[in-house]
Amino acid sequence: MPLDVTAKGVYVIAPTPFHPDGRVDESSLDRMTDFFLGAGCAGMTILGVMGEAPKLDGAESLELSRRIIRRAASAGIIVGVTAPGFAAMRSLARGVMDAGAAGVMIAPPSHLRHDEAIIGYFHQAIEAIGPDIPWVLQDYPQLFQVQMTPGIIRRIVSDLPSCVMLKHEDWPGLEKISALRGFQADGSMRPISILCGNGGIFLDFEMARGADGAMTGYAFPDMLVELVKLSQAGERDRAHDLFDAHLPLIRYELQPGVGLAVRKYVLMRRGVIASDAQRRPASAMSATARQEVEYLLSRLARHDARAKLPPV
Amino acid sequence: MPLDVTAKGVYVIAPTPFHPDGRVDESSLDRMTDFFLGAGCAGMTILGVMGEAPKLDGAESLELSRRIIRRAASAGIIVGVTAPGFAAMRSLARGVMDAGAAGVMIAPPSHLRHDEAIIGYFHQAIEAIGPDIPWVLQDYPQLFQVQMTPGIIRRIVSDLPSCVMLKHEDWPGLEKISALRGFQADGSMRPISILCGNGGIFLDFEMARGADGAMTGYAFPDMLVELVKLSQAGERDRAHDLFDAHLPLIRYELQPGVGLAVRKYVLMRRGVIASDAQRRPASAMSATARQEVEYLLSRLARHDARAKLPPV
Amino acid sequence: MPLDVTAKGVYVIAPTPFHPDGRVDESSLDRMTDFFLGAGCAGMTILGVMGEAPKLDGAESLELSRRIIRRAASAGIIVGVTAPGFAAMRSLARGVMDAGAAGVMIAPPSHLRHDEAIIGYFHQAIEAIGPDIPWVLQDYPQLFQVQMTPGIIRRIVSDLPSCVMLKHEDWPGLEKISALRGFQADGSMRPISILCGNGGIFLDFEMARGADGAMTGYAFPDMLVELVKLSQAGERDRAHDLFDAHLPLIRYELQPGVGLAVRKYVLMRRGVIASDAQRRPASAMSATARQEVEYLLSRLARHDARAKLPPV
Amino acid sequence: MPLDVTAKGVYVIAPTPFHPDGRVDESSLDRMTDFFLGAGCAGMTILGVMGEAPKLDGAESLELSRRIIRRAASAGIIVGVTAPGFAAMRSLARGVMDAGAAGVMIAPPSHLRHDEAIIGYFHQAIEAIGPDIPWVLQDYPQLFQVQMTPGIIRRIVSDLPSCVMLKHEDWPGLEKISALRGFQADGSMRPISILCGNGGIFLDFEMARGADGAMTGYAFPDMLVELVKLSQAGERDRAHDLFDAHLPLIRYELQPGVGLAVRKYVLMRRGVIASDAQRRPASAMSATARQEVEYLLSRLARHDARAKLPPV
Repeated sequence: MPLDVTAKGVYVIAPTPFHPDGRVDESSLDRMTDFFLGAGCAGMTILGVMGEAPKLDGAESLELSRRIIRRAASAGIIVGVTAPGFAAMRSLARGVMDAGAAGVMIAPPSHLRHDEAIIGYFHQAIEAIGPDIPWVLQDYPQLFQVQMTPGIIRRIVSDLPSCVMLKHEDWPGLEKISALRGFQADGSMRPISILCGNGGIFLDFEMARGADGAMTGYAFPDMLVELVKLSQAGERDRAHDLFDAHLPLIRYELQPGVGLAVRKYVLMRRGVIASDAQRRPASAMSATARQEVEYLLSRLARHDARAKLPPV
Repeated sequence: MPLDVTAKGVYVIAPTPFHPDGRVDESSLDRMTDFFLGAGCAGMTILGVMGEAPKLDGAESLELSRRIIRRAASAGIIVGVTAPGFAAMRSLARGVMDAGAAGVMIAPPSHLRHDEAIIGYFHQAIEAIGPDIPWVLQDYPQLFQVQMTPGIIRRIVSDLPSCVMLKHEDWPGLEKISALRGFQADGSMRPISILCGNGGIFLDFEMARGADGAMTGYAFPDMLVELVKLSQAGERDRAHDLFDAHLPLIRYELQPGVGLAVRKYVLMRRGVIASDAQRRPASAMSATARQEVEYLLSRLARHDARAKLPPV
Repeated sequence: MPLDVTAKGVYVIAPTPFHPDGRVDESSLDRMTDFFLGAGCAGMTILGVMGEAPKLDGAESLELSRRIIRRAASAGIIVGVTAPGFAAMRSLARGVMDAGAAGVMIAPPSHLRHDEAIIGYFHQAIEAIGPDIPWVLQDYPQLFQVQMTPGIIRRIVSDLPSCVMLKHEDWPGLEKISALRGFQADGSMRPISILCGNGGIFLDFEMARGADGAMTGYAFPDMLVELVKLSQAGERDRAHDLFDAHLPLIRYELQPGVGLAVRKYVLMRRGVIASDAQRRPASAMSATARQEVEYLLSRLARHDARAKLPPV
Repeated sequence: MPLDVTAKGVYVIAPTPFHPDGRVDESSLDRMTDFFLGAGCAGMTILGVMGEAPKLDGAESLELSRRIIRRAASAGIIVGVTAPGFAAMRSLARGVMDAGAAGVMIAPPSHLRHDEAIIGYFHQAIEAIGPDIPWVLQDYPQLFQVQMTPGIIRRIVSDLPSCVMLKHEDWPGLEKISALRGFQADGSMRPISILCGNGGIFLDFEMARGADGAMTGYAFPDMLVELVKLSQAGERDRAHDLFDAHLPLIRYELQPGVGLAVRKYVLMRRGVIASDAQRRPASAMSATARQEVEYLLSRLARHDARAKLPPV
């Protein structure tokens, strides 16, 4: 079922489980997929930076994508196809769509520094992959160094009908959501789905500003699902109560580099994956960092039973 | 009293109060200075990015510095002297030290991309301002794009005896504090003061890692003072309880650009400054953002009476 | 006489002569000013990067500007006023205009990454300095990392009537000149003066594309004057013959960092300034580099008598 | 025959010939390979930025490499394997070495900003591709934004024995060559081959500083071969005479973006390839640019018969 502009809920950014020796851990992969769907996620996003995609070769990437797509047939799988060249982007995009992906995600390269360059890049990308593949525009200026104003996003959305979703992770980004929803309201832009990233650290307010959900890898995606539902039901205080309980850990996970280690550690502690190993090159958590995470989990457990874990 | 390596506690980053017409609001400036000292701050840091320093001309900068230094005689005033050239840096540094500042703060320019360039820059800077002025090394890679490893910081500290403090705002930065304190422990680096920035968003754990306090502009510096004391007293749970109550607002303030507007708004709401006006060019908070901040304050007020404010 | 859109010829980028001990060498400054005017330069541009402006403090900058303006009364003096803040920009701009400068030059800060940010910056700058000061838009993407398409430049020129000149140093930049002159031809942009930088390394073709002259610091500005005249007279082959003879040295001077040392060395060898000293921090030419420059001068002397210099 | 530290002469950066409809033009590829070897090139470098590598998919890249390697059995083929991840780098590197390549070339990613990060990156890369593949360190700060001092290069060379060559295209870079050769002379670094890029624009002096030759794509590689021979024979004046005649065109080709179009145009005009077509996205030369190139060729033809071409 191809991705479209009505997509909502949580599309979890999936890490890639490895055995300690560096092989892909397929049984953890299956268990993780089942866990995410069981948690109520509407879909999964794979082969992003958080998924250690650059450490997989082409064959592994395709095999991994196929395995997840088969297993998660009922959910929408979005595949990151950002690449240094359009030929590689096209070949991965066509490959995963043939395998049953719901859509692909594209981020702009860091050298784009004016409107024409940014908009032109996406024209070229869609010419390369073809106009029939639903795609997600990733807006992440802190990482990619490309700044897309609401006006630029509107032009991309207007020019390219196969763009169905914005992955919003500008920071600050609350006014940008309001501006885009304002464009829809005044008829100057067609509706699109907006899912928010940045580890979820503004998700409480982003929902109220008009977001449709989250696309991020926080290790409690079940909480994100609940938060989105509470927000959509207008339960503002309860949504913030839930969010605030998780915020200290959300914040702790939002550390570039170390964040992935924390995320894998918590998923391992929750029994979702067997090992928190990363394929090399990897940076390990220090013993102190592990204690800090355990402390955060124990504090969280006072508010949310999902964080009550057996002792290490 | 010149700044030295024993500095601890909170050095609050001070905004510059303006009248709505753009003039410096001197009576708010005095009231704010008194408020910060009354809140227990050990010092203030002025003429930083958050202080709208680039919107002040040279005469205004010096006048403002002198006014604060006179009023806050008992506290240590640190002045940001980062400049595009060493001549301007020298002239501001000597001027404010003559006026009674405790020290100056220097950040590296963004084009430094290897150890020799980074270390060499600080040698040149200190040669320019003179070896007798105590100075703070500002380590803020997200903004300045210069990455200083613990080893680089150690070389700067070792080479330049007048460096007395690190303003630590790397992100992630917890392991960096541990590494630097480890250097002190193994005798490879002399002790320095470490104060943390980044709006305080990791201050709970930074204190446990060995920081001496905070240098940031969060609009509840009185809370930061209390948090530092609780941490130093070993009251870990109470420190985290206090921190967690403030974290949603700390996080909200940590938005580049909009953060300063929020900060000034909260200080105005607390009665510290008369107006949240910024000198032009400025970006205003939207009505929605103001409502979000009011909501956060009302939630915070359930845990911390300082946030109980009269209705708008 | 204020700068206007009819400006043409050579506005030489002036270095600042220092004594070996770091003091400004005022008699060299005067001699250099006389030499530039005697060489037929229409004006001089001062306080740019090449002029070691960041090594001068505010008082020195103003004094230097006044001295040159007084001495070069018949020529147009353009002063670089790029600054990290609008207050400093305004105060320098008003100061030098009061002293008799013909106009100022402004470059965009490196963080501007979309049309609205770039155009908005210049709106703010002109609001700060006032709409009555003629100014030069500096377009130098390799250094400033801001990319201005012809369309962006057209909007700046259209929005801001006090913009009278483009300092063109994009690379590649030939098509940009053609595009801008095309805008003038089709009536979509008012005429402006275009002077070219980049050490003059494309000046042969830039003139044919429609440039009005050069604004650069090549140590033979007298040759640039001649080249501009030949081009304007339609003497294409003679212009290229002259240019090609100088190209090996033009190219050698076009080395960031070392370029200024070469430039000062050649001016010293030509008797224009007394010393090639730079104020610290400075990087010296190696003995090998000096021999290379002497070799280039001796080869040039076969074609251009101005390069026949007494032995070292 | 694997690449080693004795490599010298010209390794030409090869463009990829396309038919106007975007297919790889294999007969032009063969003719170009023969031409380069006939011109005396010691080797070819393929799949670099200039080779439009990002527009080829994985299968095409491997097929192209194999075809060239088979045809140019007597020469050394170096393949660019820079990739966003080590898995892709490994898989391309092993693939082309199995096909008979002489070595690979690796450039650092732009986010490396201190010595440890830069050196660590190459350790990880060589761990990924294996220690048995001879490789070229590409030092091109203007493009990759990574600055490697002579000291950093020495550490990479010392740590990683399979590094056999430096592709030197820092600018300014003359002193860097002298510094590296100085390290060899004082015994602190083992000898390596140094080939120079940057379109050859400093090759006259680079040879005298100790370079072993050129690795660049200037459309007259036969001239580069001759220049290297003259330099090695100590014929300084004749080398400079030859170089100076070509410098106006060398300079014209050294325009990012447009440079490749010029290069392909000149190779087409020389009968080496059938079409100057680029695969999309491509930027075409304007009619004016073509006339400028023809004018440069006609001027060059007065000094070098190789530039005497039949009229268009």
